[in-house]
Amino acid sequence: MARDPAPSDSHTKAETVAEVSEFDLIGQLTKGRPRPAGTLLGPGDDAAILAAADGRVVATTDVLTEGVHFRLDWSTPEQVGRKAAAVNLADLAAMGARPTALLVGIGCPGSTKVDLLRELTTGIWQEALNVDAGLAGGDLVSAAQLVISVTALGDLQGREPVTRAGAQPGDVVAVSGRFGWAAAGLAVLGRGFRSPVAVVNAQRWPEPPYAAGPQAAEAGATAMIDVSDGLLADLGHIAKASSVAIDVQAGQVEVHQRLVDVGSALGVDPLHWVLTGGEDHGLAATFPEHGAVPEGWALIGSVGRGQGVTVDGGPYEGPGGWEHWR
Amino acid sequence: MARDPAPSDSHTKAETVAEVSEFDLIGQLTKGRPRPAGTLLGPGDDAAILAAADGRVVATTDVLTEGVHFRLDWSTPEQVGRKAAAVNLADLAAMGARPTALLVGIGCPGSTKVDLLRELTTGIWQEALNVDAGLAGGDLVSAAQLVISVTALGDLQGREPVTRAGAQPGDVVAVSGRFGWAAAGLAVLGRGFRSPVAVVNAQRWPEPPYAAGPQAAEAGATAMIDVSDGLLADLGHIAKASSVAIDVQAGQVEVHQRLVDVGSALGVDPLHWVLTGGEDHGLAATFPEHGAVPEGWALIGSVGRGQGVTVDGGPYEGPGGWEHWR
Repeated sequence: MARDPAPSDSHTKAETVAEVSEFDLIGQLTKGRPRPAGTLLGPGDDAAILAAADGRVVATTDVLTEGVHFRLDWSTPEQVGRKAAAVNLADLAAMGARPTALLVGIGCPGSTKVDLLRELTTGIWQEALNVDAGLAGGDLVSAAQLVISVTALGDLQGREPVTRAGAQPGDVVAVSGRFGWAAAGLAVLGRGFRSPVAVVNAQRWPEPPYAAGPQAAEAGATAMIDVSDGLLADLGHIAKASSVAIDVQAGQVEVHQRLVDVGSALGVDPLHWVLTGGEDHGLAATFPEHGAVPEGWALIGSVGRGQGVTVDGGPYEGPGGWEHWR
Repeated sequence: MARDPAPSDSHTKAETVAEVSEFDLIGQLTKGRPRPAGTLLGPGDDAAILAAADGRVVATTDVLTEGVHFRLDWSTPEQVGRKAAAVNLADLAAMGARPTALLVGIGCPGSTKVDLLRELTTGIWQEALNVDAGLAGGDLVSAAQLVISVTALGDLQGREPVTRAGAQPGDVVAVSGRFGWAAAGLAVLGRGFRSPVAVVNAQRWPEPPYAAGPQAAEAGATAMIDVSDGLLADLGHIAKASSVAIDVQAGQVEVHQRLVDVGSALGVDPLHWVLTGGEDHGLAATFPEHGAVPEGWALIGSVGRGQGVTVDGGPYEGPGGWEHWR
């Protein structure tokens, strides 16, 4: 546990994780962070303790790897941290839960700058504090590439969870949040552009409609999903889990003017981004009737008997959702 | 989401993760697994739901990377899975908690065999089921090397958590579980031997004394820690968090005859393994008096005023605990 001679302050910025002790490093990353009310025991012991007043805890985990889920030449470490937190927090929202806390495992090479990890964890903290959650615990290990594993814990506040399996024929389909923005941003970045900044930033980190999840649960949503793979692909998961068919009315699906503009510039139909683009982490849900759809949600389709997802009653032509290793 | 033409059964064993769809793969890894009572909603939705009858949940996360925390030429995938689960479950025990569920994030190259992942997850399941916990959720992503991130959730059953910070001068120090076995096993493997198998297996996966954690909490333990870095190093964490000094009486520390034998063969003092070897995930705790130490725990020292850890009243000569990147 000996520490190398402390570098002068002027060199601190250039320190790599290999140059500081594990305990110092964890101290640097956790020092001075707030502790939200739900975190009964914060980082620093063998485990954290979180409030679970509901008698149940909602838990989800997602792993992000450099080069697959983010690129440090496209995003700042803080943006990557926000994204790592957001993709998990969105999963909680999709169950109708309110986030309580995050646990974060980070693997990185010894050559990683301490500053990078500090900015990364700052991004995670910022996103968590947006929803009154904290970073309650973590682990930091040596790895060949930067890997960020986040587990998010949440509270159902006495409500039943909204799973993927409750959609019924006759239900309506509605969405909240952004769709197609991250895909448009990826197309822009992939061609070497850095603007329009709104769609590029949407690729760097999502802005899930966290409050819309519990809101939909309160309103009686019968099924809900976090749209990470693409709207049609994720509606397909609801259709499969609920043993129903879902039809999307293309004319009801909002295509934001910014996406129209980017589509024109790149020669791509922006509706394709909206229907198949992943990584925006909007929410899609089914409700028993039009009248149940809360404010902030937009009606886009209907649930019927059968299976699969159609657009305007027919199969959608085009590539499907994102799959790893393909 | 199209699937490549299904290979004939005789070729299934050789499939890599790049050759099967993500959804098929997750199906293969989760199919037919039991669902313990604490898992209210298992894998397959946006998030899992676990019982938290206590109104609090204990949570911890640890990441294991190939080449750093395990080697697939030394351990089977099943042994690696057991280890990944055990190191987290031991952290729960060290708070005095009973495990409820695990969430598992796995990153691996596309060339990874599906069979390897199946054996790995079988190992995780076996270790979890040992303590009536289940694997409630997970994520599977592409990564440059095999990385396993496990989050364990547990229940305090109404007890107060046993942190590292409660040791008082006058307390006694006791341990439960194995110490030095994994270090002896590492020394054996490092010299190219594969026996004695008991110490080699101790390196491959730990056997933490899970029940001893809640037992110590019931008995009034004032502080407790999972010994992952080494006995002296981890007692140092209790000493620091509790602002006390800890003295270990070397004559009271059990050195198992197997470690004596291996030490003789390799020319190493086996007491060194016991005092400084990590990865066995035994438990060390402080109790208010001799009479409070439960069966299965062995007295090894005492708590006094001051700071730091001594052996027989003086500093211990030898390298300290394990640190990453050094």
